[in-house]
Amino acid sequence: MKQDTTNEAEIRALLDGYVTAIRNHDLDGVKAAWAPDLLAFDIIAPLQYVGAEAFGKVWRAIFEVFEKPIPYEIRDLRITAGDEVAFSHSLNRNSGTMKNGQKVDLWLRWTAGYRKIDGKWRIAHVHVSVPADMRTGKAVLDLQP
Amino acid sequence: MKQDTTNEAEIRALLDGYVTAIRNHDLDGVKAAWAPDLLAFDIIAPLQYVGAEAFGKVWRAIFEVFEKPIPYEIRDLRITAGDEVAFSHSLNRNSGTMKNGQKVDLWLRWTAGYRKIDGKWRIAHVHVSVPADMRTGKAVLDLQP
Repeated sequence: MKQDTTNEAEIRALLDGYVTAIRNHDLDGVKAAWAPDLLAFDIIAPLQYVGAEAFGKVWRAIFEVFEKPIPYEIRDLRITAGDEVAFSHSLNRNSGTMKNGQKVDLWLRWTAGYRKIDGKWRIAHVHVSVPADMRTGKAVLDLQP
Repeated sequence: MKQDTTNEAEIRALLDGYVTAIRNHDLDGVKAAWAPDLLAFDIIAPLQYVGAEAFGKVWRAIFEVFEKPIPYEIRDLRITAGDEVAFSHSLNRNSGTMKNGQKVDLWLRWTAGYRKIDGKWRIAHVHVSVPADMRTGKAVLDLQP
């Protein structure tokens, strides 16, 4: 149980660093949290991004479009950690101002899978989404926790 | 490594049973795969379903609306398993015919987090989604792997 607590604390620290990197447009910091073979299901198409290089391009584009800092918040985080494998879910607030002046304020469902690699936790899988309205075909972008 | 292989095989068996239960409208079978404290981020709103009872109502409604059997397929499944905690990601094809004659054929991004409870793997978290098109506000429902 002590081990689990330590693992959970290490993953919380990883996510703290991840959020700091996002806020500061620090692409290297964002990528440092990922396993090289990261597989991402993102809020935007395609269905999946295979590898850290592919998903890094998404974040590069985000940093080009948004003003710095990006206010990014993780809420209702729950981490379930073993010694080598873990997962977490949370509701992440992705807000900010685009360089064209448009404001964004979006709550995302955020799930991550983690592997310990050379003694350090890394995000090996991430899944980011909003729900869909199957009758209208619209993404449901205005939900709040 | 042997242990991991065993854990992975056990999770594959859990998912085989889950798919069989979905195909056969077997609500008890579907719920048997879940931890009681399952937290689900589903394709439809709200943002989250807390607890197996809440998410069971979604599946009850699906079984009321769709013809039996529901053709449900898991593709590109990758399981990362420790001894007590695991996660998986896959692309799941959710197709079928509704009782009103409407046909559905949808590829979903599917992520699950697992905990071993009393020696048996259970789905403790599931995240199901399609991407969103942020320019049009539409859910992207026609992607194929």
